[in-house]
Amino acid sequence: MASTTTTKAGAPFIREVFDSVLRRRLFYTPSFEIYGGVSGLYDYGPPGCALQANVVDAWRKHFVLEEDMLEVDCTMLTPHEVLKTSGHVDKFADWMCKDPKTGEIFRADHLVEEVLESRLKGDKEARGEKVEDKEDPKKKKKKVKEITAVKLDDSVIAEYENVLAQIDNYNGEELGQLMVKYDIRNPATRNQLLPPVAFNLMFQTAIGPSSNMPGYLRPETAQGQFLTFQKLLDFNQQQMPFASASIGKSFRNEISPRSGLLRVREFLMAEIEHFVDPEGGKKHPRFNDVRHVELELLNRDVQLSGKTTVQTTPIGEAVEKGIVDNETLGYFLARIQLFLLKIGVDPKKIRFRQHMANEMAHYAADCWDAELLTSYGWIECVGCADRSAYDLTVHMNKTGAPLLVRERRAEPLKVEEWQIDLDKKKFGPRFKKDGKTIEAAVEALTQELREKLSIDLKNEGKITVEVPNVGDGKVELDKELINIEKRTRVENTREYTPNVIEPSFGIGRILYCLMEHSYWIRPDDQDEARGVLSFPPTVAPTKVLLVPLSTHPDFASPIQQLSLKLRKRGISNRVDDSSASIGKRYARNDELGTPLGITVDFESLQNGTYTLRDRDSTKQVRASEAEILAAIKSLCDGEEDWAAVSARLPAFEGQQVE
Amino acid sequence: MASTTTTKAGAPFIREVFDSVLRRRLFYTPSFEIYGGVSGLYDYGPPGCALQANVVDAWRKHFVLEEDMLEVDCTMLTPHEVLKTSGHVDKFADWMCKDPKTGEIFRADHLVEEVLESRLKGDKEARGEKVEDKEDPKKKKKKVKEITAVKLDDSVIAEYENVLAQIDNYNGEELGQLMVKYDIRNPATRNQLLPPVAFNLMFQTAIGPSSNMPGYLRPETAQGQFLTFQKLLDFNQQQMPFASASIGKSFRNEISPRSGLLRVREFLMAEIEHFVDPEGGKKHPRFNDVRHVELELLNRDVQLSGKTTVQTTPIGEAVEKGIVDNETLGYFLARIQLFLLKIGVDPKKIRFRQHMANEMAHYAADCWDAELLTSYGWIECVGCADRSAYDLTVHMNKTGAPLLVRERRAEPLKVEEWQIDLDKKKFGPRFKKDGKTIEAAVEALTQELREKLSIDLKNEGKITVEVPNVGDGKVELDKELINIEKRTRVENTREYTPNVIEPSFGIGRILYCLMEHSYWIRPDDQDEARGVLSFPPTVAPTKVLLVPLSTHPDFASPIQQLSLKLRKRGISNRVDDSSASIGKRYARNDELGTPLGITVDFESLQNGTYTLRDRDSTKQVRASEAEILAAIKSLCDGEEDWAAVSARLPAFEGQQVE
Repeated sequence: MASTTTTKAGAPFIREVFDSVLRRRLFYTPSFEIYGGVSGLYDYGPPGCALQANVVDAWRKHFVLEEDMLEVDCTMLTPHEVLKTSGHVDKFADWMCKDPKTGEIFRADHLVEEVLESRLKGDKEARGEKVEDKEDPKKKKKKVKEITAVKLDDSVIAEYENVLAQIDNYNGEELGQLMVKYDIRNPATRNQLLPPVAFNLMFQTAIGPSSNMPGYLRPETAQGQFLTFQKLLDFNQQQMPFASASIGKSFRNEISPRSGLLRVREFLMAEIEHFVDPEGGKKHPRFNDVRHVELELLNRDVQLSGKTTVQTTPIGEAVEKGIVDNETLGYFLARIQLFLLKIGVDPKKIRFRQHMANEMAHYAADCWDAELLTSYGWIECVGCADRSAYDLTVHMNKTGAPLLVRERRAEPLKVEEWQIDLDKKKFGPRFKKDGKTIEAAVEALTQELREKLSIDLKNEGKITVEVPNVGDGKVELDKELINIEKRTRVENTREYTPNVIEPSFGIGRILYCLMEHSYWIRPDDQDEARGVLSFPPTVAPTKVLLVPLSTHPDFASPIQQLSLKLRKRGISNRVDDSSASIGKRYARNDELGTPLGITVDFESLQNGTYTLRDRDSTKQVRASEAEILAAIKSLCDGEEDWAAVSARLPAFEGQQVE
Repeated sequence: MASTTTTKAGAPFIREVFDSVLRRRLFYTPSFEIYGGVSGLYDYGPPGCALQANVVDAWRKHFVLEEDMLEVDCTMLTPHEVLKTSGHVDKFADWMCKDPKTGEIFRADHLVEEVLESRLKGDKEARGEKVEDKEDPKKKKKKVKEITAVKLDDSVIAEYENVLAQIDNYNGEELGQLMVKYDIRNPATRNQLLPPVAFNLMFQTAIGPSSNMPGYLRPETAQGQFLTFQKLLDFNQQQMPFASASIGKSFRNEISPRSGLLRVREFLMAEIEHFVDPEGGKKHPRFNDVRHVELELLNRDVQLSGKTTVQTTPIGEAVEKGIVDNETLGYFLARIQLFLLKIGVDPKKIRFRQHMANEMAHYAADCWDAELLTSYGWIECVGCADRSAYDLTVHMNKTGAPLLVRERRAEPLKVEEWQIDLDKKKFGPRFKKDGKTIEAAVEALTQELREKLSIDLKNEGKITVEVPNVGDGKVELDKELINIEKRTRVENTREYTPNVIEPSFGIGRILYCLMEHSYWIRPDDQDEARGVLSFPPTVAPTKVLLVPLSTHPDFASPIQQLSLKLRKRGISNRVDDSSASIGKRYARNDELGTPLGITVDFESLQNGTYTLRDRDSTKQVRASEAEILAAIKSLCDGEEDWAAVSARLPAFEGQQVE
């Protein structure tokens, strides 16, 4: 599906080189590496951690602050009952197959995908075509031993391609059938595998010392927000619509995690639950602000036809044409794209893909993913689901808590309905302990039944009502006990369960894609090629590198002064006063994504002016300390870009600092 | 130990009123409340969540940014082996007692403490003295049914008081003995309890689908930092000392959590691991900056003598006198206090208490806690432990990873030592497969043994070496095979395992104490008393309240403009355009801790000036929009206080907005 990716500079992206930069510079590192590591667990080192904090900060400003969302922080530990009700205990699972001889475990959909893809590659090899390698070739060959140059029938190729386009749409039984049909086995041993079984992806634990309260680590931050709905609505003084938001870790006990930072067992999420009235077309008051934003859309029908062609569509048009269901969903798709662009994602590597029916989570009525293109293919980074009233309804039904909105009607509503009057005083003496059960069964009768029974009552003077667990399950009630009449009821209040639109961000995945999109290699005449991570100043881990031109002690004090002044303004900076050449010192920090550099040279000591260097262009300007500090602040706050700064401050061509 | 606490305004602190404010305004709420709740789990609502984010931000600036720490983000899921090595599997436990008849479980130390305290109260009642109630009296009586007015012997009172002063110093056996000696039973049933057993406080889970990798939720963020030590040292270009830092959730499966937000099962920590050379007295380069800072110290000896008297001591003096062990520990104690004061903790309610020997965590060589005074007594909020080389050593021994510092010696070190030369070519033919084992045993011989054996070799031409698992465990080596000689070796490099000073912050506890310290009640002539939370502007959840004087539509646009301008500057704000009186609107936001308020009145519409109100004094100034915005920015950045702002901007006495 994916073509070979290229860097910002247009050169081919080589993942091994890129990944070695990330590790060497401690953007991330496998957790517990000195103990052999645990697959699917990674730590962020200082630059990764700072990048993460800055992206989270940008997220909070873009969504929580700018849209007045109610941010909450709920626990990760979650008791069994909550996740049983939400459906996660029964349905939050992947399909796994076991090799009965070796005990090895595979994730079924991934295995089918890999084997079919490798057969298609084998076919291309057999036909003498060039094989595109989106995966690390060494690893691929080791993982799937089936790549052999075997030519396939054209009809088989078409079948395989059709299966691959819908790979996310199969359930366990269907995956099992595919494995039989296409003879898919353990690639290493060629053993036949057992049929797929569901494996629940939640980490289980026990809360408290007596082990009688089973619990899980939350699989999403959403449930805590739903359970607090009523209090949040109160906090918001009953105003609808409103959104809550939460930033925190969630957990997924992946069957066999790989793909590095993209498929991990513990991950940072940022989730929004926007609560909206289901009536009136789910309009959004600020939809006009984003109506013009163009998105690359890949809808459900296109995928089901076996294609992956995107269509560039302004979100206003997409909602009008019904491609995207409603304004609120559309509003958030556009806002998601604006956020991704703000933090530096490559605009040419974003698309929005609609989920197919079987692919959707059990709670979703519709879902679009923001996918980012990487060397691993298109990666789901933000899900934007319409969870309808699913969650609030199941929790309300289970607990009886009123997770709903009560709204005064502008016009009172008149409802014609069949009402039942019971002479409750006579119920006790007549039915003894069954009285309450019978009352409840009668109150629960539908309008249809009530109408029918009212005729029976009129005609026969008595009716028969089904009441499970009482006598033979049928109870006779006569006119003395019951009356059924059609009356008009006036409703001044409207009660409804809000629908939920949920933009859900995988921060770790976004960080990885952002790093891939930001990476390029600066050609160099003199020595080896130099990696650069072109993060925007707003999210870059360190904002400014401070380099003295000389190791002479006179330079120490002005450098320390500058560092302190930047820190006071909340601008992170690093001093490199090593004896390496200025060019080398800048190169080291290009690799860390540091966007700006100040050189303190001999002229600085005399007249207090400094040069400011832009990482991407390596151009420099020279100005007074005050002007340099102001320019840095403005660049880091995202108020100006380098073009603006270099247009107003004098260029400097003095040192060779590329 | 604690006297009844008072609010900022000097009035008695009534916890029930305070707690109802926190819950009503959604600072926090019990997690899963609609499911009946889970003890020890709480969620933060919007104001609590914002307060937390601001305190974390202040922490990051005060420590990470200002001291150039290396922040990392490690996983919470931790495999068994790591926590087995660190000692947590064996030693991270509390003592619990079971009532064999009811199955009820008690934390042994808490039970002893409660029962003895309630007996002391009963004694005071019997003597007709006033009983101080630091606990909610209703709850207390329900919890411990033993409060009956029984007079105790003076010697018994002294014994009880002595036990209580050392309550944290007993192990399980000693607690069991105390329970027998003082006949401490289940207060509700009077049943005798089983002897205390250790209950491990970690939440256990299984990583991956095959259940063969047991793991835990981390009990502290520290271990991840230790395991990454070598990489961090590389990242820091081998410079020592340096500190890593981490902010994240940790977990503790409390036996029977209570005390609300103070004892919870999932909590946010911020931990620093400062790595320092153990030689040279653990000096700190910036100690002079804090030498003058005065701390209230309660050292170990005072507590062991059964007292809790603090001594106000400048940290410089405390280190000189050896009360605090070294400069680095002292530096952090002072920095901790400066941080607590910066976020608004009451300076009269801080003390630093040294741990007693048995109380210390298994890894600690010394430990001081910053404790804050609350209505629950003195609460440990920051621990500052000297973990010596404990953790790095155990992990290095277990994994063989070089968790140490290699440093070029200024002066090469000359070491006289007994060296062994083996003729390895002859080892194979002579000993066959045992050759390697024997070699290893010889290389491992101590200097003492080598000296002794060199004499044997000289005298007898052969020696006997113990080699377990080879033959009868003794191996003879003659002159042809071995030579032992005293020589001088020159060491250019020094290798050492750094010691770790660890300031560890319980952010949730700090937030709770901060809220207690900030709370007071404004006397009011007209209606009921009004609660105020006097957070400093830097950490307040919402910075500015915007109130239009009238609901006239002309006010809508300037209010929205102001809100937008504040948001662009990153300043959170809330509009209250309800029809309530200005005074009432301010009162509502005093309770949320909003420090500043802008009133838009008719004059504002005409000349663009606004009034700015200070929450604590309720004083107002009036100035142009630009001046008001600048003043707000300066107050929120902590650059100016209200006194400074009100001194330079004209006072306004117009409206009644108290």
